[in-house]
Amino acid sequence: MSEYTSHNRNGQTIGIVKKQFFSFAAPPDRLKLESGADIGPVTIAYETCGSLNQDKTNVILVLHALSGDSHVAGYYDPKDAKPGWWDIMVGPGKGIDTDRYFVICSNIIGSCAGSTGPSSINPETGREYGTDFPFITVGDMVETQKALINHLGIKSLLSVIGGSVGGMQALEWCTRFPDMVKSVIPLATTTRHSALAIAFNEVARQAIMADPNWNKGHYYSGKKPDMGLAIARMIGHITYLSDESMRLKFGRKLQNRSALSFEFGAEFQVESYLQYQGNKFIERFDANSFLYITKAADYFDLAGQYGSGSLVKAFSKCKAKFLIVSYTSDWLYPTYQSKEMVKAMKKNNLDVSFCEIDSQWGHDAFLLPSDRLDNLIKGFLRGVPN
Amino acid sequence: MSEYTSHNRNGQTIGIVKKQFFSFAAPPDRLKLESGADIGPVTIAYETCGSLNQDKTNVILVLHALSGDSHVAGYYDPKDAKPGWWDIMVGPGKGIDTDRYFVICSNIIGSCAGSTGPSSINPETGREYGTDFPFITVGDMVETQKALINHLGIKSLLSVIGGSVGGMQALEWCTRFPDMVKSVIPLATTTRHSALAIAFNEVARQAIMADPNWNKGHYYSGKKPDMGLAIARMIGHITYLSDESMRLKFGRKLQNRSALSFEFGAEFQVESYLQYQGNKFIERFDANSFLYITKAADYFDLAGQYGSGSLVKAFSKCKAKFLIVSYTSDWLYPTYQSKEMVKAMKKNNLDVSFCEIDSQWGHDAFLLPSDRLDNLIKGFLRGVPN
Repeated sequence: MSEYTSHNRNGQTIGIVKKQFFSFAAPPDRLKLESGADIGPVTIAYETCGSLNQDKTNVILVLHALSGDSHVAGYYDPKDAKPGWWDIMVGPGKGIDTDRYFVICSNIIGSCAGSTGPSSINPETGREYGTDFPFITVGDMVETQKALINHLGIKSLLSVIGGSVGGMQALEWCTRFPDMVKSVIPLATTTRHSALAIAFNEVARQAIMADPNWNKGHYYSGKKPDMGLAIARMIGHITYLSDESMRLKFGRKLQNRSALSFEFGAEFQVESYLQYQGNKFIERFDANSFLYITKAADYFDLAGQYGSGSLVKAFSKCKAKFLIVSYTSDWLYPTYQSKEMVKAMKKNNLDVSFCEIDSQWGHDAFLLPSDRLDNLIKGFLRGVPN
Repeated sequence: MSEYTSHNRNGQTIGIVKKQFFSFAAPPDRLKLESGADIGPVTIAYETCGSLNQDKTNVILVLHALSGDSHVAGYYDPKDAKPGWWDIMVGPGKGIDTDRYFVICSNIIGSCAGSTGPSSINPETGREYGTDFPFITVGDMVETQKALINHLGIKSLLSVIGGSVGGMQALEWCTRFPDMVKSVIPLATTTRHSALAIAFNEVARQAIMADPNWNKGHYYSGKKPDMGLAIARMIGHITYLSDESMRLKFGRKLQNRSALSFEFGAEFQVESYLQYQGNKFIERFDANSFLYITKAADYFDLAGQYGSGSLVKAFSKCKAKFLIVSYTSDWLYPTYQSKEMVKAMKKNNLDVSFCEIDSQWGHDAFLLPSDRLDNLIKGFLRGVPN
C-alpha cells in the first residue's frame, strides 16, 4: 500500500501519495477484450489514500473521467503546485473520508498516465502501439480494475464512485460484478451516449485525425498532432461548461483590449480561455488515448449490453445501493438520462437515492467544491453496511 | 427586375428566377467599412420574386443566414433538383406571398455566392483577396443591401425578414435605417452572441486555420482547406440541431452494420450524417467566407453599438412593427435572448408580437416547413400598412 500521511502545508492538511504499478496478462495469458482482440502484458497505474482495514471492508474505488489519472488526491511532493484531481472530495475528513476509507484510483486502460495505452510500447514491435492498439470498452476498463482489486486481495467494494466516463465505469462495475459492489455513486453520467454526445466526440476525433501530424496514429517518433488535439479539447471543454457558466465567466468581455481589433486571434476572453485549455491539454495528454477513450464512451450502452435493450433488465442482477447525482445545467448528460436509470433501478426494487443538484456550472460541476455534494456522499457512505 | 413566372412541374407551382448583380463603390468611391478599412468595387448578387408595384411599396427584403445565398425561392431551371433555400416560405400563396409582395434576397458581402468576398479577385493584386479581405460586420452587410435598395429606386421596405445571422441583419436594418423599415421579422436570432455561441464559432475557425492547406488564407491556387472546413461545418451543424431532434433522427442507430465494428470510421448514423454534411458543404462554400462571416456574427452587438450597452436605448429610434419568433429547442439562440429584445422593444412602446414556437428541431427549425410559421408571417404582413 502507498503511504498516505497527513502533512500540513500553509495550514492545509495534505497527503503524500505515490503512484504504483500492477502488471498482468503477461504472455501467454493475454487479456481478452470485448472487441474480440487481446492484449498483454497490461500495466495499471494506481494510487491509494487512507488505510485498508484488517478485513479489507473499507475499500472505495474512485474512477476517473476521460482525461483523468490515478492521482486522485494528495500531493506527490509538498512542493507540487496542485494536488490530485479530486482532492476537494478525497482526504481526511472530506466527503470521501480517508480517515475511514481506503481509496483506490487507477488510470484506465487506453489512457496515457501510467496504464497501458496506445502510447505504450507494443512488445511485438518494440515501438508505441499507436493505432495498432486494440479498441477498448468501458467493460475492459472495469476488467482491468477487477484484476487490480484481485491483486490487492480485496473481495468486496464498499463503494464505487465516479463522474462522467468514471460514472459509466461505476455503473458497469455493479452490473458486471454485482456480488462485489455494496454501493455505487454515479455522478453526472449516463447509461449510454445520446446522438448529441456521440456527435461531439466524433467531431473532436475528426479534428485529431485531420491533423497531418496524426499520421494514422503513428506519430510518436515525430511531431505530434497537437493542433488537432487542442481543437478536440476545445470542443470537449465547451460541452463541459454551460451557457450560463460561460456567460457569468466570460460574457462578451474582450481579452486585453478595450475595443475590437478585427483579427483572427483571440479577441474575446472566451476564445483566449479555450485556446489556453487546448494548449494546456496537449502537454499532458496523448491524442490516440483521446480517440480510444471517446470511442469507448460512445460504445457504452448498459441496456444494449446487459438487457437486450432494456435498462430494467440490465439492472436486474444488481444488488448495490445507489446514490445518483445529476446537475441542472449539465447538457452533455442531462438529468432526464439520470432519471431513466433511477426509474429502471426502482423497477428492480433497488435502494436508490437520486439528487439533481442545482448548479450553473454544467457537466464539470461534479469536479467543483460543493458542500452539498460532500454532505450527500458522506451521509450516503455512512449508510452503507461494511 | 428578374422574371418570376409561375410554372407547373410535377403538379407544383414553381418560379423561374435569375441571379442578378449590382456593382458599386468603384474607385475612387470605395465603401467605408465599420472596421475603418475600405473596399471597392463591391458587387452584390441578388434575386427577386414577385412584381414590384407602381409606388414600390410592396417590397420585402429577405436576409440569409451564415451559409445562404441570394437564391431564396423558385428554380433557375425547371430541371434543377432543388429550389431556393426558403422556397417553402417564399412563393405564390405562401407565407411570404409573391402574388402580393416583391421579394428581394441578396448574397451578403464576405460570402462566396456572387457577392464580393475573400474568394473574389482583389483588383489591386489581380488575385483572390484571401485574408487580405477586410473584416466585415453585420452593419456592413446592411450598408451594401441599402446600396442595392437605393439602386432599385426603393424608398421603403414593407418588411425585413431573416433567421439566425439573417435575423441579426434584420435587427440592424431597423436600427440603422429606422425610417425605411415598416416591419421586421427576426427569427431564431439574437441581438448579440453569447460566450457559448462565440466559443463554437471560434473552435470552428480554429479547425479551418489548423488545416495546413489554409495557408494563412491564400489557398486559391492550390489545395483548399477542405478538412478544416468540413470539421467547422460539423461543429456548426451540431449547434443547429437539438438533443431531441438528434435522438429522434439518429439515436444510437448504426450505419450500414448490425454490430459495432470497432474502427475509427462512421459506425453510428449520426457520425455518418455529420461527415456527409461536412463533405457536402465544402463543395459549395469558401473557408475564408466562413471565417469572415462567423466573425461578423460574433462582433454583432446591438446594445453595444447603438445603446452604449443598453438594448432599450438601442431600439429607441426604431419605428417598425415587430414579429419576433424563437424556438423552444434552439439552444444556440435560446428563447431568453428573444425575450430580452421583446422587453427592450416594449419599453420603447414599439408594436411587438412575440411567439415561441414549440419545436424539437433546434435552431434550424425556421428553415423547416411549418404551417404555424406560415400563418404567423402571413397574418403579420397583412397587418403592416403599405
